[in-house]
Amino acid sequence: MGVSRRSMLAGTAAGVLAPVVGFTGTAAAAGPVRRITLYAEALPDGLYGYGLEPGKATIPGPLLEIYEGDTLEIELVNTTDQRLSIHPHGVNYDTASDGAPLNASFNNPRETRTYTWRTRARYEASGGFWMPGSAGYWHYHDHAMGTDHGTGGLARGLYGGLIVRRRGDLLPSKQYTVVFNDMMINHRMAPDTPMFEANLGERVEWICIGHGSLPHTFHLHAHRWADTRTGMLNGASDNAQVVDNKNLDPGSSFGFQVIAGEGVGPGAWMYHCHVQTHSDGGMAGLFLVRNADGSLPAGAQDAIDRFKQHGHTGHDANPDARTHA
Amino acid sequence: MGVSRRSMLAGTAAGVLAPVVGFTGTAAAAGPVRRITLYAEALPDGLYGYGLEPGKATIPGPLLEIYEGDTLEIELVNTTDQRLSIHPHGVNYDTASDGAPLNASFNNPRETRTYTWRTRARYEASGGFWMPGSAGYWHYHDHAMGTDHGTGGLARGLYGGLIVRRRGDLLPSKQYTVVFNDMMINHRMAPDTPMFEANLGERVEWICIGHGSLPHTFHLHAHRWADTRTGMLNGASDNAQVVDNKNLDPGSSFGFQVIAGEGVGPGAWMYHCHVQTHSDGGMAGLFLVRNADGSLPAGAQDAIDRFKQHGHTGHDANPDARTHA
Amino acid sequence: MGVSRRSMLAGTAAGVLAPVVGFTGTAAAAGPVRRITLYAEALPDGLYGYGLEPGKATIPGPLLEIYEGDTLEIELVNTTDQRLSIHPHGVNYDTASDGAPLNASFNNPRETRTYTWRTRARYEASGGFWMPGSAGYWHYHDHAMGTDHGTGGLARGLYGGLIVRRRGDLLPSKQYTVVFNDMMINHRMAPDTPMFEANLGERVEWICIGHGSLPHTFHLHAHRWADTRTGMLNGASDNAQVVDNKNLDPGSSFGFQVIAGEGVGPGAWMYHCHVQTHSDGGMAGLFLVRNADGSLPAGAQDAIDRFKQHGHTGHDANPDARTHA
Ligand SMILES: [Cu+2]
Ligand SMILES: [Cu+2]
Ligand SMILES: [Cu+2]
Repeated sequence: MGVSRRSMLAGTAAGVLAPVVGFTGTAAAAGPVRRITLYAEALPDGLYGYGLEPGKATIPGPLLEIYEGDTLEIELVNTTDQRLSIHPHGVNYDTASDGAPLNASFNNPRETRTYTWRTRARYEASGGFWMPGSAGYWHYHDHAMGTDHGTGGLARGLYGGLIVRRRGDLLPSKQYTVVFNDMMINHRMAPDTPMFEANLGERVEWICIGHGSLPHTFHLHAHRWADTRTGMLNGASDNAQVVDNKNLDPGSSFGFQVIAGEGVGPGAWMYHCHVQTHSDGGMAGLFLVRNADGSLPAGAQDAIDRFKQHGHTGHDANPDARTHA
Repeated sequence: MGVSRRSMLAGTAAGVLAPVVGFTGTAAAAGPVRRITLYAEALPDGLYGYGLEPGKATIPGPLLEIYEGDTLEIELVNTTDQRLSIHPHGVNYDTASDGAPLNASFNNPRETRTYTWRTRARYEASGGFWMPGSAGYWHYHDHAMGTDHGTGGLARGLYGGLIVRRRGDLLPSKQYTVVFNDMMINHRMAPDTPMFEANLGERVEWICIGHGSLPHTFHLHAHRWADTRTGMLNGASDNAQVVDNKNLDPGSSFGFQVIAGEGVGPGAWMYHCHVQTHSDGGMAGLFLVRNADGSLPAGAQDAIDRFKQHGHTGHDANPDARTHA
Repeated sequence: MGVSRRSMLAGTAAGVLAPVVGFTGTAAAAGPVRRITLYAEALPDGLYGYGLEPGKATIPGPLLEIYEGDTLEIELVNTTDQRLSIHPHGVNYDTASDGAPLNASFNNPRETRTYTWRTRARYEASGGFWMPGSAGYWHYHDHAMGTDHGTGGLARGLYGGLIVRRRGDLLPSKQYTVVFNDMMINHRMAPDTPMFEANLGERVEWICIGHGSLPHTFHLHAHRWADTRTGMLNGASDNAQVVDNKNLDPGSSFGFQVIAGEGVGPGAWMYHCHVQTHSDGGMAGLFLVRNADGSLPAGAQDAIDRFKQHGHTGHDANPDARTHA
């Protein structure tokens, strides 16, 4: 695949907690202006990726993270021979930063172009009706390769996560970006899907993104979250639904935080698409919750070894073949 | 197609702000009784539509709008040679107004029949548990043509939007009905899909409805909304998820209001299904935000001209072919 | 099919109101420990089911119901010659009770194994952010038959509903479990789908579960609910969306309560998948609301008789053929 697990995990963690890696904070009326350079690059096997440094492109691209009020200026360096762009969800941009060919907003081959994303807080419109702000678990993706909707770019790896936080939001100690894209997770299939790791009790954040043309449902074993902006409740009387399985369909995204292993202990926990033909076909991965001291819990290595047998097209339906597992 | 853009947009705007066009307000215990006559008519090319006047049927049908507490009596005149009906979502009706052949509730060919829809406000059931009222962004559709589930009527254009407001809700200055129905938007494919227009700063309301047999996700560029009844938040601490992409699957509907161009400026903004094969296949349209004075913003005409090239089956994957756009 | 409507309805009603049938309440620090024995059994026609007594397995399995804080110990007796398990959504379990072959958590043929599910209430994490508790409308299913994801078990009937209540929640007088699983409802197709019955004014609870590999939308005629944990609102200013149609995709579940026939009267009301090819293909059933005294309302028997004509593949598109209905 040409993208090592190492580089991919590093990619998904870019910008964790710290205001996005590489940002130059500059005061502005509405909040600081942060500037990054992103490199769109060709990867082996016909794939493409975004990266914060030349030669470091990953699939998914780096996780970008800002606060409501921030402006993010992205200098996108297209090192490829393809037309491509970057189109965000959840933030403000004028037509020149739309990332869509409709608005002539894209990078020609070898071209560098700057895209500006702005954010704002919610505000009261009238008598108790508040217009929403930008805070949320969002994403960005190509909107120009192959078709005017970026179908070629999405099929080849040009996507990543974007978090806009409200000031005061709880910060996690680890972050995982999970992209369901046709039959792949982060452009991989089991057993090569990412294994996300945390120690028991760590607050970890999941950013889940759907792409492609198939419907999916994201399921995480032994953990759950509220179906809200943060995945948490707003108080003891908050009546939001709590879920551990949620639609993750093309263009949608959501995020949540869980305390790794809380109430369930350490171990190798599965996350997977709950569409049965998809999970059998390889849309599954591991959330490895280690002991609090970082050591491997009893049984986890066995589970990891079993997972390495996970096929792409489902197992033999004969249970006897697997009872020695 | 036989339905001009003019008549269709007029159709979707019927009843805007004013209590539904043609209503005769009549006091009743629970609230006023409003009466309209709807005409179900054959259109060219084997299509059908609902209209508020003879010869004025549109796809989608007129947007109906009432307040919680209102009763709506619909005299449905079937001018066609087909069995058909009108079945609403979100409101109260007895079995005679179900619109389903199961309850013998339909119009035979050339038959006129009255359907009565009632609404009510939320109320407290017990200790802080409130039963929901009728307020919401709903819809109505045929439930009798072709099959007992109205599959033939839905495939041929018999559907429309229905809003039930809570008193005190903010009112928009423009309204758009968007129906994702198999591979079509309002029974059209790009570039013939509706272009919705507003001036910068106008409060516009979107009513999104899913029909047919395919899953979809509705995405709007440069604008977003809260995943709530109104699309707005309830206060500064409201923790609802904010989205710009949402499942729009068969039978579902939602609505929201945005301030046209707020924080992003005027321009030609795309709305589309985010399922890649669907957007490439023609499920896309334009939201044209004009300058505040109604003039066309710079670049908008170019974008509209480009959109007219939108194919039904995706573009050439060779980006070089389009960089002159 | 080998599962009579009688036994199935009994199955879905197991545990109604009373702490789950067969439970032995045992005090524990966090709340009582409840113990049940479940029997996984082969049924005719290659199907399987869970039951609370030998020879009483049903599809879906018994509805299990506990309160937040309770622990549920399930002794699962595998009377079959297949590998199988029980995997829950929404509750806490350690890896040994995961029900997944990944964690070697399953019953070999003819093996008995105990699975322990724990629950807890929401709690404040920090400054107004509350981690969600276990309360919700959940479900359980096999995760080991056929494939490591239980695809074989799901296809053959090994699934059921699970409710975790918050203390103080309103209790219903009747409960219905509705499982959309590929093209079936509770492993049946119209007209053999369950007919759920209540008297006018009864508070009835729906537990809706999605399984298999197809996307669905659940629609109920003449009734609606809030898209919240309980299906109710939290107060007069609660801004949650109210729906009567909701995605019911694989692995997802939700529940709600309605007052049977409230504002609409008694009658035979349809519930169905709103994906047109699915409803036409047999994914529909009846919610029979009787008069308050239990007698059959006018017209209901006719509707039931009509429903018995419901095909598996849609009706003749010629409306004239049905106008005598
Ligand atoms: Cu999937
Ligand atoms: Cu679509
Ligand atoms: Cu369905």
